[in-house]
Amino acid sequence: MSKKMKVAIMEGIGKMGFAERDIPVPKDDEVLVKLEYVGICGSDLHYYEAGRIGSCIVNPPFVLGHEPAGTVVEAGKNVTHLKPGDRVALEPGKTCGHCEFCKQGKYNLCPDVIFFATPPVDGVFQEYVAHEAGLCFKLPENVDTMEGALIEPLAVGFHAAIESGIRIGQTAVITGAGCIGLVTLLALKAMGITNIIVVDIMEKRLDKALELGATAVINGKTQDTIEEIRKLTGGKGCDVSFETAGTDITTKQLIHASKKGGTIVLVGYSADGTLTMPSGLALDKELTFKTIFRYRHIYPIAIDAVAGGSINLKGIVTNVFDFDDIQNAMDASVADKANIVKSVIKIC
Amino acid sequence: MSKKMKVAIMEGIGKMGFAERDIPVPKDDEVLVKLEYVGICGSDLHYYEAGRIGSCIVNPPFVLGHEPAGTVVEAGKNVTHLKPGDRVALEPGKTCGHCEFCKQGKYNLCPDVIFFATPPVDGVFQEYVAHEAGLCFKLPENVDTMEGALIEPLAVGFHAAIESGIRIGQTAVITGAGCIGLVTLLALKAMGITNIIVVDIMEKRLDKALELGATAVINGKTQDTIEEIRKLTGGKGCDVSFETAGTDITTKQLIHASKKGGTIVLVGYSADGTLTMPSGLALDKELTFKTIFRYRHIYPIAIDAVAGGSINLKGIVTNVFDFDDIQNAMDASVADKANIVKSVIKIC
Amino acid sequence: MSKKMKVAIMEGIGKMGFAERDIPVPKDDEVLVKLEYVGICGSDLHYYEAGRIGSCIVNPPFVLGHEPAGTVVEAGKNVTHLKPGDRVALEPGKTCGHCEFCKQGKYNLCPDVIFFATPPVDGVFQEYVAHEAGLCFKLPENVDTMEGALIEPLAVGFHAAIESGIRIGQTAVITGAGCIGLVTLLALKAMGITNIIVVDIMEKRLDKALELGATAVINGKTQDTIEEIRKLTGGKGCDVSFETAGTDITTKQLIHASKKGGTIVLVGYSADGTLTMPSGLALDKELTFKTIFRYRHIYPIAIDAVAGGSINLKGIVTNVFDFDDIQNAMDASVADKANIVKSVIKIC
Amino acid sequence: MSKKMKVAIMEGIGKMGFAERDIPVPKDDEVLVKLEYVGICGSDLHYYEAGRIGSCIVNPPFVLGHEPAGTVVEAGKNVTHLKPGDRVALEPGKTCGHCEFCKQGKYNLCPDVIFFATPPVDGVFQEYVAHEAGLCFKLPENVDTMEGALIEPLAVGFHAAIESGIRIGQTAVITGAGCIGLVTLLALKAMGITNIIVVDIMEKRLDKALELGATAVINGKTQDTIEEIRKLTGGKGCDVSFETAGTDITTKQLIHASKKGGTIVLVGYSADGTLTMPSGLALDKELTFKTIFRYRHIYPIAIDAVAGGSINLKGIVTNVFDFDDIQNAMDASVADKANIVKSVIKIC
Repeated sequence: MSKKMKVAIMEGIGKMGFAERDIPVPKDDEVLVKLEYVGICGSDLHYYEAGRIGSCIVNPPFVLGHEPAGTVVEAGKNVTHLKPGDRVALEPGKTCGHCEFCKQGKYNLCPDVIFFATPPVDGVFQEYVAHEAGLCFKLPENVDTMEGALIEPLAVGFHAAIESGIRIGQTAVITGAGCIGLVTLLALKAMGITNIIVVDIMEKRLDKALELGATAVINGKTQDTIEEIRKLTGGKGCDVSFETAGTDITTKQLIHASKKGGTIVLVGYSADGTLTMPSGLALDKELTFKTIFRYRHIYPIAIDAVAGGSINLKGIVTNVFDFDDIQNAMDASVADKANIVKSVIKIC
Repeated sequence: MSKKMKVAIMEGIGKMGFAERDIPVPKDDEVLVKLEYVGICGSDLHYYEAGRIGSCIVNPPFVLGHEPAGTVVEAGKNVTHLKPGDRVALEPGKTCGHCEFCKQGKYNLCPDVIFFATPPVDGVFQEYVAHEAGLCFKLPENVDTMEGALIEPLAVGFHAAIESGIRIGQTAVITGAGCIGLVTLLALKAMGITNIIVVDIMEKRLDKALELGATAVINGKTQDTIEEIRKLTGGKGCDVSFETAGTDITTKQLIHASKKGGTIVLVGYSADGTLTMPSGLALDKELTFKTIFRYRHIYPIAIDAVAGGSINLKGIVTNVFDFDDIQNAMDASVADKANIVKSVIKIC
Repeated sequence: MSKKMKVAIMEGIGKMGFAERDIPVPKDDEVLVKLEYVGICGSDLHYYEAGRIGSCIVNPPFVLGHEPAGTVVEAGKNVTHLKPGDRVALEPGKTCGHCEFCKQGKYNLCPDVIFFATPPVDGVFQEYVAHEAGLCFKLPENVDTMEGALIEPLAVGFHAAIESGIRIGQTAVITGAGCIGLVTLLALKAMGITNIIVVDIMEKRLDKALELGATAVINGKTQDTIEEIRKLTGGKGCDVSFETAGTDITTKQLIHASKKGGTIVLVGYSADGTLTMPSGLALDKELTFKTIFRYRHIYPIAIDAVAGGSINLKGIVTNVFDFDDIQNAMDASVADKANIVKSVIKIC
Repeated sequence: MSKKMKVAIMEGIGKMGFAERDIPVPKDDEVLVKLEYVGICGSDLHYYEAGRIGSCIVNPPFVLGHEPAGTVVEAGKNVTHLKPGDRVALEPGKTCGHCEFCKQGKYNLCPDVIFFATPPVDGVFQEYVAHEAGLCFKLPENVDTMEGALIEPLAVGFHAAIESGIRIGQTAVITGAGCIGLVTLLALKAMGITNIIVVDIMEKRLDKALELGATAVINGKTQDTIEEIRKLTGGKGCDVSFETAGTDITTKQLIHASKKGGTIVLVGYSADGTLTMPSGLALDKELTFKTIFRYRHIYPIAIDAVAGGSINLKGIVTNVFDFDDIQNAMDASVADKANIVKSVIKIC
């Protein structure tokens, strides 16, 4: 008779519940992980509120959550680099290994990826998960499992920062100081970027950005963003920027505020899936726009950066909720975006 | 008493005339060039029709034309690499050499550039011009001065092709088979790209693309562009594409037709200076958008490619007009875009 | 009772023989290929002459040959992209798919690769082989199986040419006009490089280089290589060079003949595994040295380039031997390197 | 009657003296700088000991010193970004601005560079210098002029680190913990590299490396360097390494200790200008060797990194000498390389 675990279930739009399911049995190349912390991502909230993201539709009962960390309790017989007791961060996407993208090393583009909490694949707001050992990364002693859960969003920030091609000595601007804006800030700091300007319209988020190391912040509601960036860069404009707010207005501001030859990384999705921008000005400046989809080969880098001590990853967390309190965690996170930047569920 | 030359003058919107001016005297580091061919660029036509491009406003009398080639007739005393009798193509932009962009080798972004036929700087629809010798590139024996005049648009094509990062073996799509689309096609062919699909809505332009070496063409008016590209790429989509039409619809088609991880080079300016695109899909595919402004370090490459014989540069020319016939040349080029892809003025 | 096939066996140093072995049965993801042509590589000759290359030691009976092409006669049940009758070129190395290098897309560095004719793995001088379908690349109609067999060395040339970072308009020098030097020449030509200087000390090889499209050749025995390169480049030196001869002297020549900031690709192995070079001069010029090991992701590119018709791949073949004549093929290829640049075995 | 200044003169091999010369008058685009600190570089010591480096021969009287910083006392009339009282670090090389390399942004390769203390151009062990204002970089308030003088060697470290292509998360090895090894360490740390192993044979230098932030050090005299690097990298080898010792043995060690696909930056000149290395092993691993000559576009980056506070630049200085004591400074620096890693002359 198999053992049981508690699983948080999205039972419908805006409705969480709990169920009991069998604790999974790890395959030969898997480990069984007792989860300790799982972060709540903006996409979890979006599925919870709207029941869908684009063509991905939740059919309840569904399990949300894809930012997990915990402790290995059992290892499949082919697993050599992990053993029970090891604390791990779990990369949430299993890829095919055979397609053109996997072969070229761009596995984040694998069309057959199986990714936690992307319908119809269940996520991990639950007590245990069996996962491919190669996707479980051991945490060093000085990195705890709450930080482990935050490696997933940090990986997004690192992927954006690395793909931007930013070089030491350059100036960065980040529009949007939500979770993704903040982890981008942390990634840039870890890469030695010393001039980072953060733009948002909520004071609390800007305070958080300053606390985490932004060189300067701009409140786009009360200040002229383009003019402020010009002043802060001695009239030169920014070299590289990261658009995480997903709006026409912030994109337009970055095009105006960029130095000729600059790069803008589009990270945030817009509400309606489209973007209107002053392309003529972008052409005159010979700007490059990069877009970013999740991350690849980043977990070891992100863990290493946190272990190195130069960034304050836990600083992005504004709220920690108990597992039993998950309905409230979801509701509060949806309702109070001005104050709740990042929530984490403490599973055990 | 100085000698005189004939100069074609834009006297007002839609009105050309002629004037007599002094033949310029070359400075120590300049050469005096007797012009033989000067191409008509889309920007010349735009100034002629509308009197302005963005914030650049024509104040007549103004001289259009920035695609010149001819024969050196006099060399300043510091000039060592050219002598009278040498046939040359003239790069039209003089840059400052001191700004951040010039120092970094990105001289096309120099804010203080002096560029032929960009108001208030006069162009070269005239018999002679004195020009910085370093911007005059000697043509090999097997490249004539009509080809020399076409090096300027070809340079745009090469800059787009090179900056795209395309690699041998990849598939390219070009939307828009006007002059810039066609020179991009030629540049890609010179770089060994063998699969090049060209999209336009005018049959005559598509015929021209096929004649110049396109692998396949799509008539966007009568065919489903996205579906045709899918078929032509075995369902994979294109690796790199070049948007020269400047429309929302072609940009959207390229985002749909691109392979994940692909690159789209935005070359064409849109009519109103803005672009609306399905950014969510672009993010899902992790696409990169590059924009292009003129070119840098390209003249020697373009001349070398033409001399090598692998591309048919003169094939893009549909019409050659005599200098005296310039009013007609401008009017016809404006009026009949379906048939006149590229006009060149024969100065002498 | 399984069917039998003929296999050429290296029975000892300098001694070939034949054996009969079972025709292999393809696994689900494999195809069975009836081989038509298999090229003789320099490494085959080296094993044949010396019994070893570095720490790879031949224990006879051993099968040489790793440049195969033929026709599919049976496809495993999971194979979808190939069917009996398809003609294919076979990439000879099966990689693990799991190591750091495979995951990053650099599968040529996989430490667990299983590569035809690299001891203790047998090669394919034989009538049939069962091979992973993903490593069998369908040949277009206008590419025959002798060209198919030559895709393997051409892939080395393409990998060297691509990794060199050479750009259109640059000048290349190749030292050594053996098989690898010649395929590098072909790859560069396919990539649009128009100035390619080839250096060797054997006239016949230089003639071959000219026949295949070299811009100029230098006989290093009778001419001053450094001085000739200087003259041929207008005093500027070469941008990118490819050292395929594996000698101190040619490496030194390239360091002297390179333009500042240039790149030298080291392709050829030296006889004793070491290289002595004027490093001080290399530092003064800020040169980059790339080394090359086999190739990755190149077969489709190389096949596409041959199909495109711009290069004469069969032109590198100086000798075709019947399968029954393989002892003579090996002996002659070892004995007469001045005249036999590239031999191919016609299996059937 | 012009004012006079004190100048330290190399009067012959191993012999310093002083002279009085006119204080120079700045041209329109120059500033006059009262020097405060000038570092002693290994090349200064080499000229002092041997009278030459390669083909550069000292003809006394000659002025050494090319690592200066001080305070602007007069600005030419075209200078806009500096004024008297500004403290500046001086980049020592004036380039032509017109050659192929300058135009491409690789000005460190300019063949017509005029570089302080490279014969026959005098250096700056003197009280004042007039220098092109564009080569004088203003120091922020929290960077003093001793740090300003050290920007020059730090620029070498940054150029090596940037050109290596190292990415965050990778492991670096530096062989040689002299001044250049240490500034490379500092540059890597500023770029967020957290795993940096330093190898030397002098304990005092290794202590310095640890003090400045090396993750681990290896004494190549008493330890097996290759084996230690293997252990420290979990058997994987290093990703990127920097050879600053200029010896065959350290180069060989790095080839053995490198991960497949790795990069080795050759920074140090060997005593006889040649290098012998196991090229066969390098080819098997597909290693890349980069060489480095001085630096380009680095001063602003280096100053910004020091101002950011993450690296301890003054920590590399072991000895500060008064200007009057320069004979002793040179003699001691030559004699006691085990203890004197970096000396600086305090001019005033």
